[in-house]
Amino acid sequence: MLRNFRTYLANQWGLPKEAIDQLCAQINTKQVDKEGFLLKSGEICPLTFFVEKGLLRMYALNEKGKEDILQFAPENWLVSDRGSVYFNEPSDYYIDAIENTTVVLLDQGFMERISDLGPSFRKLNERLLHNHIRHLNKRVKLLLGASAETRYLNFIKLHPDVLLRVPQWMVASYLGIAPESLSRVRRALAKKNFKPGQRLS
Amino acid sequence: MLRNFRTYLANQWGLPKEAIDQLCAQINTKQVDKEGFLLKSGEICPLTFFVEKGLLRMYALNEKGKEDILQFAPENWLVSDRGSVYFNEPSDYYIDAIENTTVVLLDQGFMERISDLGPSFRKLNERLLHNHIRHLNKRVKLLLGASAETRYLNFIKLHPDVLLRVPQWMVASYLGIAPESLSRVRRALAKKNFKPGQRLS
Repeated sequence: MLRNFRTYLANQWGLPKEAIDQLCAQINTKQVDKEGFLLKSGEICPLTFFVEKGLLRMYALNEKGKEDILQFAPENWLVSDRGSVYFNEPSDYYIDAIENTTVVLLDQGFMERISDLGPSFRKLNERLLHNHIRHLNKRVKLLLGASAETRYLNFIKLHPDVLLRVPQWMVASYLGIAPESLSRVRRALAKKNFKPGQRLS
Repeated sequence: MLRNFRTYLANQWGLPKEAIDQLCAQINTKQVDKEGFLLKSGEICPLTFFVEKGLLRMYALNEKGKEDILQFAPENWLVSDRGSVYFNEPSDYYIDAIENTTVVLLDQGFMERISDLGPSFRKLNERLLHNHIRHLNKRVKLLLGASAETRYLNFIKLHPDVLLRVPQWMVASYLGIAPESLSRVRRALAKKNFKPGQRLS
């Protein structure tokens, strides 16, 4: 049980087996069926979700009622709305399941319990937060000025596993481009015999 | 000297005068003239900059050689490239001065010295990092799906002080819209007698 979560605690946090056993004994999980919701806009959700198995997405509805996808979360990814978790705000976002999904439910106490294991864990947590900010800045940079092809190639690099599990319109939504632009990019890449996992020169 | 930085330490971090005196005694500052650089793409910069007086911007050059503005930093704002500071990567970004600027130079040791003042400061730092992530997610949401007018109104709310200090093309660059779109939005708002600081119904 919780094989991915236990591996995450061991690899990402460097925790020994005893500490992992102790943390997992206090952990709750939840099953959510495909198209089921973990969070809806307007709700306050104090939880962060770790995806043990399955695939989630976080999205917002824009002024035209279209879904803009902020994040995909396959196995071993965390997803949460920080405004809700840390600032007690009603969320602007939805989190739902693209596949039948098992999530580990992490409350604020969970991070405290990890921090209590030693001061190095709080530093590691800070490092992970800086890394998150670094990645979001890269995303903003791509959205501001990168071509549809560059955005798509970056997505493949970040999420090679998600590519085949979601419909193309969701990828286009995440990239902030029209579905037709994505089709054009994919045709152009196919003509160059590009395969995911391969870098174009 | 360092009036803004001292106020920031008192208000944001809740530090007493003695701690502020101690921290400021170990602090270096730098003057950078208008159009001068603090960071160029390809360089590694281990510093975070606090703007004591003046105005900075962080930008990237896109595939067409155009400047995409990631962030404006007027007085009391912090700006840094986390990839460079925390992961020792050559930067993708430029940081330069839009006005003659005085910055406080913060190295990694600075955060350690604040943390050493007590465990509550490390928690406060985490909260500030979560807040940064929350704001970057909002920015991504706006870039993915908001109209030019919504983006502009959000910018005015976040940066009322910057609006009159930068040329319009820089605002358009930050918003990820064409300068002509921004002119159109401004004309439409003027027709509605909109004034910055006022919310449209």
